[in-house]
Amino acid sequence: MNNLPEPIHNLVAWFNRLPGVGPKTSLRYVYYLLLRPKEELNQFAKAIIDLKDKIQVCSVCRTYTLNNPCRICADKKRDTSLLCIVAEPRDVQALENTGEYNGYYFVLGGLVNPIEGITPEELKFSDLEKRITQDPPVKEIVLAFNPDIQGETTTLHISKILQKYPIRITRLARGLPVGSELEYADEITLTDAIKGRREV
Amino acid sequence: MNNLPEPIHNLVAWFNRLPGVGPKTSLRYVYYLLLRPKEELNQFAKAIIDLKDKIQVCSVCRTYTLNNPCRICADKKRDTSLLCIVAEPRDVQALENTGEYNGYYFVLGGLVNPIEGITPEELKFSDLEKRITQDPPVKEIVLAFNPDIQGETTTLHISKILQKYPIRITRLARGLPVGSELEYADEITLTDAIKGRREV
Repeated sequence: MNNLPEPIHNLVAWFNRLPGVGPKTSLRYVYYLLLRPKEELNQFAKAIIDLKDKIQVCSVCRTYTLNNPCRICADKKRDTSLLCIVAEPRDVQALENTGEYNGYYFVLGGLVNPIEGITPEELKFSDLEKRITQDPPVKEIVLAFNPDIQGETTTLHISKILQKYPIRITRLARGLPVGSELEYADEITLTDAIKGRREV
Repeated sequence: MNNLPEPIHNLVAWFNRLPGVGPKTSLRYVYYLLLRPKEELNQFAKAIIDLKDKIQVCSVCRTYTLNNPCRICADKKRDTSLLCIVAEPRDVQALENTGEYNGYYFVLGGLVNPIEGITPEELKFSDLEKRITQDPPVKEIVLAFNPDIQGETTTLHISKILQKYPIRITRLARGLPVGSELEYADEITLTDAIKGRREV
């Protein structure tokens, strides 16, 4: 990647910072852009600038939004007894895409991870307590975290904090993902699938 | 990907246009950028705008450059008897990274592809003829194309046009790439490897 003209080298370095993008992919992006008309590049650049100018964090659920409160928190037709706790704003989007969930959300902003120094204090679990003690009362909390160690740890912490409230705490089902092959499933997933088996 | 705030949706659409980037990857890029400070996004946007503002096409070899002629064409220490023909400017970069080639380059801007309507006329082979009839004379032309049908077709066309000139025409060696496994090599590659075998 040496000897590239400076503007190319510079943009390669920026693309390189994106998650999962290495120097070869970056260079591919830049060569693609070099073939596009100038006007298109200006629009692309404007879209990047507009991102931070217009997007804010919802003061109720802490997801990204244009207006505060966000579209979901402002929707009065949703089920006020249901609150889904997710790690990141992108998880809200993933759950909304299913069309299956009709309650409200609360974004933690991360998962408890002692190795990386992310403690329950840093995630401000006190904000979560404030949220669930508001009216109308929450009857069920759905924990929708990644099925990994951080997700498990966070689930433990939250259940401990919330045990003093008369709230049902659930979590997303574990089992075989659609389209997977049983013979290649790992043992933990298969154990979850057996334990959580359901009537046909 | 519905119901995303418009600035997020908009930037996702822009990333989506990059080669090999789908909607999920785009969204991942955008969520990453949302976590970065505003100043960083402005710099990223500026890098995109600067790309077209500062980069031009070398009038001699047609690669991307800051100054015209480019660094390579302006280098008087290179071997004037050698000219390497490549399809795209990115191929110049790949060959330069080897440090093995000391001649000059000529970028075709594509490969002959009758299915997509890219004819020898469109690629302006006449410009190539102009280039090789200039002084000092070129003694060897190295064709450095992808080893596929388009590369083969273009090689055929160029050899036909250039047969009237006293120029040696060579092409990159074919064979097993380093680190590959012989048992998984396809038959054509293995045939090339046998035909092109070399003394140890």
